[in-house]
Amino acid sequence: MRIMGIDPGLAIVGFGFVDKNGSKLSPIQYGCITTEADTDQGVRLKQIYESAVQLIEKYKPDAVAIEKLFFNKNVTTALSVGQARGVLILAAVQRGLPIAEYTPLQVKQAVVGYGKAEKRQVQEMVRMFLNLVSIPKPDDVADALAVAICHAHTSTFHDRLNGNGVHKP
Amino acid sequence: MRIMGIDPGLAIVGFGFVDKNGSKLSPIQYGCITTEADTDQGVRLKQIYESAVQLIEKYKPDAVAIEKLFFNKNVTTALSVGQARGVLILAAVQRGLPIAEYTPLQVKQAVVGYGKAEKRQVQEMVRMFLNLVSIPKPDDVADALAVAICHAHTSTFHDRLNGNGVHKP
Repeated sequence: MRIMGIDPGLAIVGFGFVDKNGSKLSPIQYGCITTEADTDQGVRLKQIYESAVQLIEKYKPDAVAIEKLFFNKNVTTALSVGQARGVLILAAVQRGLPIAEYTPLQVKQAVVGYGKAEKRQVQEMVRMFLNLVSIPKPDDVADALAVAICHAHTSTFHDRLNGNGVHKP
Repeated sequence: MRIMGIDPGLAIVGFGFVDKNGSKLSPIQYGCITTEADTDQGVRLKQIYESAVQLIEKYKPDAVAIEKLFFNKNVTTALSVGQARGVLILAAVQRGLPIAEYTPLQVKQAVVGYGKAEKRQVQEMVRMFLNLVSIPKPDDVADALAVAICHAHTSTFHDRLNGNGVHKP
């Protein structure tokens, strides 16, 4: 199964494609979509949408995992990230991909095994799970890979439950 | 000039098409796009996007005016409305339409001439400007028509300024 992890944003969208074979995870491609602050907001959303469509068509994921963000402070940021998130989800749904959402807490629990883990700990676990020489930069890329790994672990867990007939969600 | 006014949301998107000929405004079509709460969020965004594309292709507006929302309380709502707003803006930008955003304050000032106008006053002015028998329901539809009227008045003002060579934005 190939998972596309996404860390949404308007200026920068982190993405990471991870293949899961049994318990083995392999990084396929990762990076970020960036848009310029002085570009019209609508054009930026179109650039994000088109880049996402291109990535999905090129790397053909089986599922998309996206960070579910909470904002305590800045509502304007929530609206702006929401808009970017909307076009990213649209790109995936139009291609029939299932979308899973994970909170930062869920990502930390799945990747580090500890919901209050530091950002650096998450990034180090991402590096180890994917057998990378260094932590991917910027943070948005590491975050996107973390949410992909979170989905890989979570869906493995569900698969096992389903295989045993214990639980059918 | 034909203006498409939009009041964005996930459960309900109000829309209204208004033609402006000189100072005369005529309602062409108005209503709302609705999505069901028990439907998957991604599917709801796809439904909103596809309905918006159909409306744009059918009524061929020259410009889109959309409410710029502020949320003081509920950040989850901001994220959710932001996602719907993102796919609506995408639908317009993909068809090369200019998009204008107006805050509720700007809409009230342009429609009623008073930034602290009550919702009911705005709705009554919408009814009068468009020569309608009754106030369109639900509120989202009246709000969408209000933002279209706001753009009609605002763009008239800019046109006049441009015509006089006083101001080129």
